[in-house]
Amino acid sequence: MVKEEQGLTVKKSQDISEWYTQVIQKAELAEYTGVSGCMIFRPRVFAIWEKLTAFFDAEIKKLGVKNAYFPLFIPEALLKKESEHVEGFAPEVAWVTQGGHTPLSERLAVRPTSETIMYDAFAKWIQSYRDLPLKINQWVNVVRWEFKHPVPFLRSREFLWQEGHTVFAKKADAETEVLNILELYKRVFEEMLALPVIKGRKSENEKFAGADYSTSVETLTPSGKAVQAATSHHLGQRFAKSFGISFLDEKGDKSLPFQNSWGFSTRSIGAMILYHGDDKGVVIPPRVAPLHVVVVPIMFDDTKEKVVKKAHELGSKLEKAGVSVFVDDRDHYTPGWKFNEWELKGVCLRVELGPRDLDKKQAVVVRRDTGKKDFVQLDELVKFVQDQLELMQKDMFKRAQQFLAENNVHAKSWKEFEKGIKDKKLVYTPWCCTADCAEHIKTQTEGAKCLNLPFDAPKAEGKCVKCDKPAVATALFAKSY
Amino acid sequence: MVKEEQGLTVKKSQDISEWYTQVIQKAELAEYTGVSGCMIFRPRVFAIWEKLTAFFDAEIKKLGVKNAYFPLFIPEALLKKESEHVEGFAPEVAWVTQGGHTPLSERLAVRPTSETIMYDAFAKWIQSYRDLPLKINQWVNVVRWEFKHPVPFLRSREFLWQEGHTVFAKKADAETEVLNILELYKRVFEEMLALPVIKGRKSENEKFAGADYSTSVETLTPSGKAVQAATSHHLGQRFAKSFGISFLDEKGDKSLPFQNSWGFSTRSIGAMILYHGDDKGVVIPPRVAPLHVVVVPIMFDDTKEKVVKKAHELGSKLEKAGVSVFVDDRDHYTPGWKFNEWELKGVCLRVELGPRDLDKKQAVVVRRDTGKKDFVQLDELVKFVQDQLELMQKDMFKRAQQFLAENNVHAKSWKEFEKGIKDKKLVYTPWCCTADCAEHIKTQTEGAKCLNLPFDAPKAEGKCVKCDKPAVATALFAKSY
Repeated sequence: MVKEEQGLTVKKSQDISEWYTQVIQKAELAEYTGVSGCMIFRPRVFAIWEKLTAFFDAEIKKLGVKNAYFPLFIPEALLKKESEHVEGFAPEVAWVTQGGHTPLSERLAVRPTSETIMYDAFAKWIQSYRDLPLKINQWVNVVRWEFKHPVPFLRSREFLWQEGHTVFAKKADAETEVLNILELYKRVFEEMLALPVIKGRKSENEKFAGADYSTSVETLTPSGKAVQAATSHHLGQRFAKSFGISFLDEKGDKSLPFQNSWGFSTRSIGAMILYHGDDKGVVIPPRVAPLHVVVVPIMFDDTKEKVVKKAHELGSKLEKAGVSVFVDDRDHYTPGWKFNEWELKGVCLRVELGPRDLDKKQAVVVRRDTGKKDFVQLDELVKFVQDQLELMQKDMFKRAQQFLAENNVHAKSWKEFEKGIKDKKLVYTPWCCTADCAEHIKTQTEGAKCLNLPFDAPKAEGKCVKCDKPAVATALFAKSY
Repeated sequence: MVKEEQGLTVKKSQDISEWYTQVIQKAELAEYTGVSGCMIFRPRVFAIWEKLTAFFDAEIKKLGVKNAYFPLFIPEALLKKESEHVEGFAPEVAWVTQGGHTPLSERLAVRPTSETIMYDAFAKWIQSYRDLPLKINQWVNVVRWEFKHPVPFLRSREFLWQEGHTVFAKKADAETEVLNILELYKRVFEEMLALPVIKGRKSENEKFAGADYSTSVETLTPSGKAVQAATSHHLGQRFAKSFGISFLDEKGDKSLPFQNSWGFSTRSIGAMILYHGDDKGVVIPPRVAPLHVVVVPIMFDDTKEKVVKKAHELGSKLEKAGVSVFVDDRDHYTPGWKFNEWELKGVCLRVELGPRDLDKKQAVVVRRDTGKKDFVQLDELVKFVQDQLELMQKDMFKRAQQFLAENNVHAKSWKEFEKGIKDKKLVYTPWCCTADCAEHIKTQTEGAKCLNLPFDAPKAEGKCVKCDKPAVATALFAKSY
């Protein structure tokens, strides 16, 4: 609850990490716990996650994907079956070693991702080409016991996500799906969270452990750090080989299928908070906002009754029109206090209604993102609110696009590259795409890495920005969470 | 997929546990894994869970409950804060002791339930009577490392559930909620799963570890074993004391609030399978069925095309009317094979359409639960299907009620009691409600225990059925999962 120290005590532009820490707690989005890196998703944030999951779940069901649930615990032997995969994940696995008072005979990994336990089952389920494609998804918690400094949502040891796992008879069909899902992720970020993202292919050294190749959507946050928003991987036949997944094709010959896996997580919410928030608090795009409108009746002793009554009437009308509303008629807080609280919490629109407004049959509507104030006739309020919510969603996306447009550079030289990274920009650059060079760049820039090789970047020419090898692709670099 | 060994090789009445093991695998409901007691919820079952959660989630949201997510891992010290609670759960906790290659300084419990981690946060969030009631729910996986023989769904080490945790200023309000939620659970079982349940209060020795008292809904399955379907607990002020949750009341005095917790889980699905299944496979009530109708076109070379076309036409019409449909026009299986497959998998209605039916403008509709066959004019098909689905839901519930009515006895003597338990009945009996006596009964009957003290049972008179102490209540006994 917002108590005495109601507002934020730091500006976003002053110290964005302190601002972020304050805003997630004061706006009641997350709560720290006694376990470092494990946090509580409070109702205000969980409602955002519910809206994201509802959107994406409906879209993948249209593609024939079915939801299931696979066990949390993966036996160590199973996790080790695919060698590249286990190398990637073993350093950050949380291990269960004891059940009750009894030591376990084999350690169990708390799933960091579910390829291994799923594909062990897929091998039993898939026998004929008629069993393909197989398209399974699950919405679950996963644990990655990282030792970097945790950041709520963005880098936490436990997070919520969906992981889709699909199996195809033909490589081409699998590869088509990789891009279809990537496009869906783009829509989640752009249409729901109002965050523009950049599609591309991960470089070899940044791809998913065990994948043939990975694709991703990436974005830059106002902290100057990029966020990998979601990934869609083509696994080829590597896991099929390790897990013995094969099928009889139409001619009766035994074949190995092609697999994909893809996921996005609650870190998306962290990006949203960083992107859109301001000095007053969090700003939430209407399509994912837990609360669209707060109606604040301005209460004086003699007119209180009729103003409050009208406020509730308006609230009901809005709710009937599909707008979520809270009528804040608490009489132990001043209107100003309430305005601050709801701005902090990111309610999209504030409707103020005082006795003089009532006389004029109007209300004051204030937009959270711009602070713009409108006097609206009461009989036009529902329509106005609906329009403003749509407009706000669009405007927030436009401003975020603007931010992204202003914060990227094309570096042709190492000097330009270094300056771009120092200025906290996204840096497009011709790159050799080798692991050695990636390591050099990382060291010399204190952490910049290749986010992806954007699909729509110009073809690379000449030499790599860093070394003498020929440039293979235009790469996107930044520091990242 | 259903392969060569398509059907069940055992009758339900012959060997119900072997039948259960076969049906959950052959109907593609669950899959065993390498970790004993941890299973895969396959899409056909997960879809049932989605329908249950959608129903219950909407109902609790009407009551003002909000969803959140609390961490999977609970530090050992936190779990131990409430002494009765930890005694109840410690013997079956899975412990994480290592993160990556590093031993943890404090063991972490994989949540068996979330009272402790939630209430630690509640203590921060609750300060004034204005912060109450607080009503939080989460839909999550939990782990209880039991050492009994696991039974898929019914007794598994990991399961899915919801856990509601609420805090009230007044005891009366908390106690009212306990019963409101219990009534909601009754509706989940009776209206969705077509399973009649018996409401009651748990005996002292069977109550939730740390509760003032527990209430439950219980039912008997055809295996002769009862299932605790869901529980709703009043925790009183015990946890508030242990976790330091207090609030300033309207007079400014510091008070302890009253708490509840309540949950139901995927074990409900196990009860449903046991209850309704038959020798042909699983039977699923229409309101939770992943698939309502399979249309099977009877395909001969010369008429195949028009029959298949019509089958898809009917399929589309049904789907538009909100019925879920699969048109099974696979030509590598005979109609008989398909009939068996869909009966095994529990599709509610089968619509057969052959060329002669087409001439007569009719289809054959077969109900899964009764096998009843109807010839239905095509232009009446949608209405007929909708009516049959509703009727099937009602009939399944009626038959289950009938089963429950026929399988309970009122035992006035120990001899009657023993016979009732031996006959695999629910036994109502006057009981002293002491822990010692419960232990004696358990030993002498090889496992019978008090399910609950049913709310609507007659008042107990005279002596306890087992010992010489006076009877305190009419208790419901059975062996159980």
